Amino acid sequence: MNETNGQRVEVYDTTLRDGAQGAGISFSPSGALRFAGALDEFSVDFVEGVLVPGRGEGEGFYQDLGGLPWRNARLAAFGRTRSPGCTAAEDPGLQGLLRTKAPVVTLVGKASRSQVEVVLQVEPAENLAMVEESVALLRERGREVVFDAEHFFDGWTTDAAYALEVVGAAVAAGASRVVLCDTNGGRMPWEVAAGVRAVCAQFPETIVGVHLHNDSDVAVAGTLAAVRAGARLVQGTFNGYGERVGNADLCSILPNLALKMGVQMECGPHLVDLRALSRLLDELLDRRPDEGRPYVGANAFTHKAGMHVDAVTKSPETFEHIDPGAVGNRRRVLVSGLAGEDNVRLKAEELGADLPEGDDGVREVLRQLKTMESDGYRFESADGSFRLLVERTMNSHHAFFDLLGFSVMVQKDSASEGVTTVATLKVAVNGETELAAGEGAGPVDALNDALRKGLRRFYPAIDSVVLEDYHVRILDPETATRATTRVLIESSDGHHRWGTVGVSANIIEASWQALADSVEYKLLLDRRRAASTRQGRAKSVDVASTGEGDEHE
Amino acid sequence: MNETNGQRVEVYDTTLRDGAQGAGISFSPSGALRFAGALDEFSVDFVEGVLVPGRGEGEGFYQDLGGLPWRNARLAAFGRTRSPGCTAAEDPGLQGLLRTKAPVVTLVGKASRSQVEVVLQVEPAENLAMVEESVALLRERGREVVFDAEHFFDGWTTDAAYALEVVGAAVAAGASRVVLCDTNGGRMPWEVAAGVRAVCAQFPETIVGVHLHNDSDVAVAGTLAAVRAGARLVQGTFNGYGERVGNADLCSILPNLALKMGVQMECGPHLVDLRALSRLLDELLDRRPDEGRPYVGANAFTHKAGMHVDAVTKSPETFEHIDPGAVGNRRRVLVSGLAGEDNVRLKAEELGADLPEGDDGVREVLRQLKTMESDGYRFESADGSFRLLVERTMNSHHAFFDLLGFSVMVQKDSASEGVTTVATLKVAVNGETELAAGEGAGPVDALNDALRKGLRRFYPAIDSVVLEDYHVRILDPETATRATTRVLIESSDGHHRWGTVGVSANIIEASWQALADSVEYKLLLDRRRAASTRQGRAKSVDVASTGEGDEHE
Repeated sequence: MNETNGQRVEVYDTTLRDGAQGAGISFSPSGALRFAGALDEFSVDFVEGVLVPGRGEGEGFYQDLGGLPWRNARLAAFGRTRSPGCTAAEDPGLQGLLRTKAPVVTLVGKASRSQVEVVLQVEPAENLAMVEESVALLRERGREVVFDAEHFFDGWTTDAAYALEVVGAAVAAGASRVVLCDTNGGRMPWEVAAGVRAVCAQFPETIVGVHLHNDSDVAVAGTLAAVRAGARLVQGTFNGYGERVGNADLCSILPNLALKMGVQMECGPHLVDLRALSRLLDELLDRRPDEGRPYVGANAFTHKAGMHVDAVTKSPETFEHIDPGAVGNRRRVLVSGLAGEDNVRLKAEELGADLPEGDDGVREVLRQLKTMESDGYRFESADGSFRLLVERTMNSHHAFFDLLGFSVMVQKDSASEGVTTVATLKVAVNGETELAAGEGAGPVDALNDALRKGLRRFYPAIDSVVLEDYHVRILDPETATRATTRVLIESSDGHHRWGTVGVSANIIEASWQALADSVEYKLLLDRRRAASTRQGRAKSVDVASTGEGDEHE
Repeated sequence: MNETNGQRVEVYDTTLRDGAQGAGISFSPSGALRFAGALDEFSVDFVEGVLVPGRGEGEGFYQDLGGLPWRNARLAAFGRTRSPGCTAAEDPGLQGLLRTKAPVVTLVGKASRSQVEVVLQVEPAENLAMVEESVALLRERGREVVFDAEHFFDGWTTDAAYALEVVGAAVAAGASRVVLCDTNGGRMPWEVAAGVRAVCAQFPETIVGVHLHNDSDVAVAGTLAAVRAGARLVQGTFNGYGERVGNADLCSILPNLALKMGVQMECGPHLVDLRALSRLLDELLDRRPDEGRPYVGANAFTHKAGMHVDAVTKSPETFEHIDPGAVGNRRRVLVSGLAGEDNVRLKAEELGADLPEGDDGVREVLRQLKTMESDGYRFESADGSFRLLVERTMNSHHAFFDLLGFSVMVQKDSASEGVTTVATLKVAVNGETELAAGEGAGPVDALNDALRKGLRRFYPAIDSVVLEDYHVRILDPETATRATTRVLIESSDGHHRWGTVGVSANIIEASWQALADSVEYKLLLDRRRAASTRQGRAKSVDVASTGEGDEHE
């Protein structure tokens, strides 16, 4: 069935260049260098950087890229063919490309006759000369040349002969690779395959690749279809970042090629690092990872309902198309009242909570869980609160502090003035009480401020806790301002992330529950870690690697 | 090139059932009904609801769905084939399905021999009997039956004969449609196409469909490949919501079928409402829209400044694969331009606001609008606030009341006790002041109570205003409790509905803005209606039917 079995394919990354065209995507120079290094380690074949001709910073940055210790990948400098009406040697863009240390230069030129005439406004013959002379110059100067045939598929549909002539001009001048582009992202996979077949038939000695955009939501499938049609190079971006809705996503293309189609790639042995690479990219771009991303997202192997979890345990392939570990991901089980006892036990164990031998405890946790869910609580993204629920139900949890009361006051003195918000809070720790006042941008912020001030003396470690995310959901909005409110808070101490939840008709009370759980969970985590370190010293067992609490990493 | 040209395909929506299996996807009963109504209006062919057998609420909700005035779509109840070892007539699940008013019943049964043996743990022959008898029972009782062949493609790969036998059992018993499922989402488009071709060849009289999951990131392409292979029904969810990484996304499938493949669908003429449907879904689910979604996302036709924008102007197809208007989307250019003045004028007129003759006023409103939008305000569902913005900018609005100040106090006296919430508020109306106190379930509720008490004496009409909906969105959740908050309130006086908006780092202040606008707009509405009634009497013109303010009805 797989005619691609054993076939070799090269991987060409354009995250730093075309990926950076995406809305909200912007690399810092150090971030770009770091990602380029990670790509090299991952062993993609080509890493494209962007050269802005005539702009010093661009070239300077390029020199930095050129200076990396490339071990597996080759750096490709990206630019256009020469401008109309000048010689290639005189063209400032090409001169800039030649000043880079990149061993490979990727030149983009138009392969659609109507684009040449209408947008570029040059004669079709001049466009051919621009391609041929530019490639020839770079070859003369010792560079390997990849030719990106812009608008190839649109051109091939309306004037196939001209599109093939453009490709032919690049090949004749010495381009080793031709990449066919679907620049506006409108082509269907079978159209891409047909174009690739035509080019492969006419230029059997050339490595043909594709560069697709995802505007029709089929860029991954189009890339796979191209490989089946004879393409030996795939161009894309990690996390699918890029102009408009993005480029073909290498995070999906690579595992599909390797695991579904038996394709051989230099980066094949590194697929286990795929998820880490995807996460690193988001971290460098300061973006929240899309957990719904195939293969690498947290939801990719997450199971919800009771029956499913049962089936996955019996036969993983029921709801898992690959072994999650193959791409560095893992199975996740969401706890919810729909789930059975096994589910609860599994989850509690994953979080390192103590469960007694018999089933009574688990049953009691499940009962408690269902009651709380019917009140509006959700624990899928509130591991911290779930673990506290387990510990409290088992009576194994001794609270780190007791609330003796709080008040929050919001005051506005006239229509034009802002509001002032002040909170007071009284807590007891081991018989000692503390009264603290806090202020903030809003009532929850002020309460958080007061809570930290009140506890700092007893638990200095809470200073390391940062609230990273605060979500409010109105559960029955049709009851308007009397509606029940669910608050989810995500916290981090630099090593772990955890979620906590609160529910009440009063948003302040709901926020308080989530805030209090966040601090309580942090302190529990620290105590367990300290205990397991001591145990570890005694027994030489390292249990810190159970991933306790790092569900959201 | 398009062998599918003119082919008819049915659209089967499973957003309410399989879509709701997605992480963080949960419909309120009223939200589900509203979306079902929107699907009917959009003219999909089938809308699947979920029946939880034996659970009263589930069935009750089903009765509500059955009671909708279905005009274009048919409601399909979803359930399993009978359990092993009982008769179909005795099976509680099938009994539950028969109690629904749904004209169509969709039954899911396993089509993979190994799944039957390993997970279901029944004999392959018993599984065939389960399918055949369950379908037969429903047919006898007058229901049209759709058969979902679970794990079909996996089964077809490992034991094709058995997979086809299962399909045959359903067809023999009278299922009019067979939907082939890729339950774990691991199959490539060409594998899907091959399976579809085999089933179409063996059962030429049956309508064959597919139900694909997106785990390999090719569910849209797989669905299109299935149609090319002979499938005449596509099953999917809007926005691609669903288990793990989601189902095949109808937001991409439908325009691809209609605009790229020339396929005929009942919903074809409604494609211009695609973006609105996608947005409505997110609104009902309280989710932030994914602006990177092909076709319907805000980024789908967004062009960054410079060369691209120029090229798009010269030749839109350069970077736009379709006319954005075909799916209700539009071109966006990320440079501040004058685009939008017409829009503002149109919208203001639609709401009955007075705009001066010249363009200066409109420009000023646009400027104001842009400033407020960059602060986080959104006016799409806040017509009341938009109209007040216009009137205030034109200096044509005399405020009905002035706020002299408010305070809100939330107090909790111990961990175990609830909170008490009290608000005080001072307003002035025509030189007279009023101080009022209110209480409530939460701070906003208390403030609302105080506002009504304070104004009642001057404006008894506000007693008729009911707050129908209250939404809170955290705009930059990663700044946690300091995040900016947007509050949207929907109000009604029994005749009209209107939305108002407030934005602030303080949720109380944001809520106050929306509350104050709600009352202000109600009073403005009444004054205008009174004026137009007087005018109407003089001129015999009834302008009450302009639909002023009833955007949301």
